Amino acid sequence: MEDKASIDDVLQQVEDGLGGSIDRLIALLQIPSVSSEPAGSAAIAACADWLAHQLRDIGLQADVVATECHPIVMARSERKPDRPTVLFYGHYDVQPPEPLADWDTPPFEPALKQEDGLTRIYARGASDSKGQLWTVIEALRTWKEARGGWPVNVTVMLEGEEEFGSSSLPAFIESHRQTLACDVAFNSDSEMWSPTRPAITTSLKGLVHEKVTIVTPHGDLHSGHFGNVAANPLRILTKILGAIHDDDGVVSIDGFYHGVESVSPELRAQWETLDVTEALAGVSIEGGPDEGGLGPIELMWGRPGIDINGIWGGNTGPTERSVLPGTASARLTFRLVGRQQPERLRLLFRAFVEDQLPAGCRAEFEGEYGTAPVSMKETGPYIGAARRALDAEWSEPALIKGTGGTVPVVGWLSAALGIDCVSFGFILAGDAIHAPNERFDTERLRKGIRSWVRLLSELAP
Amino acid sequence: MEDKASIDDVLQQVEDGLGGSIDRLIALLQIPSVSSEPAGSAAIAACADWLAHQLRDIGLQADVVATECHPIVMARSERKPDRPTVLFYGHYDVQPPEPLADWDTPPFEPALKQEDGLTRIYARGASDSKGQLWTVIEALRTWKEARGGWPVNVTVMLEGEEEFGSSSLPAFIESHRQTLACDVAFNSDSEMWSPTRPAITTSLKGLVHEKVTIVTPHGDLHSGHFGNVAANPLRILTKILGAIHDDDGVVSIDGFYHGVESVSPELRAQWETLDVTEALAGVSIEGGPDEGGLGPIELMWGRPGIDINGIWGGNTGPTERSVLPGTASARLTFRLVGRQQPERLRLLFRAFVEDQLPAGCRAEFEGEYGTAPVSMKETGPYIGAARRALDAEWSEPALIKGTGGTVPVVGWLSAALGIDCVSFGFILAGDAIHAPNERFDTERLRKGIRSWVRLLSELAP
Repeated sequence: MEDKASIDDVLQQVEDGLGGSIDRLIALLQIPSVSSEPAGSAAIAACADWLAHQLRDIGLQADVVATECHPIVMARSERKPDRPTVLFYGHYDVQPPEPLADWDTPPFEPALKQEDGLTRIYARGASDSKGQLWTVIEALRTWKEARGGWPVNVTVMLEGEEEFGSSSLPAFIESHRQTLACDVAFNSDSEMWSPTRPAITTSLKGLVHEKVTIVTPHGDLHSGHFGNVAANPLRILTKILGAIHDDDGVVSIDGFYHGVESVSPELRAQWETLDVTEALAGVSIEGGPDEGGLGPIELMWGRPGIDINGIWGGNTGPTERSVLPGTASARLTFRLVGRQQPERLRLLFRAFVEDQLPAGCRAEFEGEYGTAPVSMKETGPYIGAARRALDAEWSEPALIKGTGGTVPVVGWLSAALGIDCVSFGFILAGDAIHAPNERFDTERLRKGIRSWVRLLSELAP
Repeated sequence: MEDKASIDDVLQQVEDGLGGSIDRLIALLQIPSVSSEPAGSAAIAACADWLAHQLRDIGLQADVVATECHPIVMARSERKPDRPTVLFYGHYDVQPPEPLADWDTPPFEPALKQEDGLTRIYARGASDSKGQLWTVIEALRTWKEARGGWPVNVTVMLEGEEEFGSSSLPAFIESHRQTLACDVAFNSDSEMWSPTRPAITTSLKGLVHEKVTIVTPHGDLHSGHFGNVAANPLRILTKILGAIHDDDGVVSIDGFYHGVESVSPELRAQWETLDVTEALAGVSIEGGPDEGGLGPIELMWGRPGIDINGIWGGNTGPTERSVLPGTASARLTFRLVGRQQPERLRLLFRAFVEDQLPAGCRAEFEGEYGTAPVSMKETGPYIGAARRALDAEWSEPALIKGTGGTVPVVGWLSAALGIDCVSFGFILAGDAIHAPNERFDTERLRKGIRSWVRLLSELAP
């Protein structure tokens, strides 16, 4: 890899313009763009318009594109054939701020506080994900101001319904494949490992939601009279769900682990040096599964799983009642890794349930589609560019990590455009995302902008 | 057994007075004595007063005794030392009539209809249990009218909170042991086998209610991030509950069957001749347990069991949510037979749960006391008297049966007074008890009164 030309002028421009970057982020945070509530629609529209205006202001051609749900802001630079095309994804919608009483300052009146040697910005969306996407936009602005343009062809796609299920995004991506075509995509909605150590998330889990209801050939009965003779859906359901995992938490469904790739020795070695307490953010995992001896980091980032998320049936009220119900239900999620396929696992699970049904009883299933897992080679060129950019900016080397969570857009973009979608961003575990007193700090804003500036340089031909 | 003197005069008096018996039952059914709703308290009090008046009217000394819940009507005849003392139990409260829209006629305006060659009385409480207790009262009235007194010392105890848990009855029985002292008790709140075949219930199941909550060392978590490492109370609970029964429905908890008495060959032979379809009242038991080959009648009447009545935890809402909850709960009932002891089984269950808890997790239990099973020798003298009385009145011989249900008063009276409490009554499966359009018919009222008349004769010294 040849040496890059100096970008000191661009980095200096970040420093000189930081006050303006903060002011504009504060203006963005003042827009209450809550996506999951009808009352938020006007603010969503205003936020999309505001962002499109900002993107035009830095020289991109920007549009607000309507969808069946919330609008998507699309912006593109002029295309030059000798340069790679880079897509930046972010989302501008936020979680509802409730409970309001738990906020120290109003969620949509950003408050700057000096704490722990930092200037913290308190507001809904400060970190998830307005603060993060703003590091990208300000990096683009700075390049433009310093150099009159960008070293790559730029595409920006900002979504307004990430916190509300992204229902219209897959169809949007499919129908805009030409506009979105690129060499690589970057997702800024991602987290750091620690305040001094950035992270690149190279594997994201696939996700399948499934609901199962056991239906017996009878309605609600008196459990005293019929408990010993009629099929009890609660017995059936608990027996089936209780058989999914062995005592170590290993899934007992035949074929479940087909397509799972083992974590590379290099990655495992890196993960084994990590402070588990930090990864768990204070959550006690006493009594949790370990698949017979795996470490928490590998379990969380590298292993698939089945979770029971909810169960209900019969008498769920406050008093005793001798009922033998006719039905019982549960909700589950499957988290996938490697080459596991959502629909194949769904079918395996359904067969597993049906094999255990007594005569005359049936299972009703709800759930469709699913998100495939994403697993990128940590040795790929774009991961390499991101690592160099981050390593140059931060005091500790970037961690190559996985996540237990699912970021569907990463899979959708990868699959539809045939590219890698690399995730790095600057959220910390203590940022209270989705909670009262969400926060970010101006130091992460500054170093975040500088990180993207460095990445653009790394991506230059 | 010596031949009894003729009671043709008393039986004729039943026929002659039947119109009045029906009229008085209708008056009783007009009182909306719903015990489970505060709005019913005035009607409960009015009903107790009305009954005390009726009992005084036939020559008993009657009182309305206040309790912490609803009043108990107590009545006694003059004691003659050469005669056995007989306690009659019934309850005068009724279930709420809702849903009102499903009634063809108003629930507290008794409607007489000619159907299937019978005169049916439609009203809440017509069969459960005002119609049943009225067969007893009218039998006492008729004896008094025909003979000026009774062949036994009579005690009547009418409860006003049977449909509301009988919370004050155990303490009442304990504190009134002297007043209630008797040689035998009869419970009229019981059912026939068919319109032509009466039944005596000699075994009633014991009952233990138990609630269990699995508590993990964490609150609600994101199941994507923590599902593979944190203890999931839904996994733990379903695994434990799923292990209670083997695939045949046999309880796997060590010691559970201690104290269970096997059904006598004579009783089993009688039960095997019964029409199972009738016993099941149209309920499908396809896919239900059979303990490896037992018949439904023996399973329902003769075998103990554990039922899961309700379960809940995590996301029980209408949409998908990736939650790993901190707790999960279930309600269970144990139905006991023979010499099984409520508190011993409760402790066995709690130990069974605790033995399976992962480190750091705990179980919270709720539940106390319980009802012991009642099992009477079908060859005892009072069962014999009841069989002779019923066999003389009805076209088919009385069935000696068990029940899957629990009638706590039977156990309480037996234990507190050291006597047998024999249950027979005249409810049929088609009477819609606890449901809209509850009914009784005047033929069962007539033959019910005659049955008790015959019983009084059989009990005479």
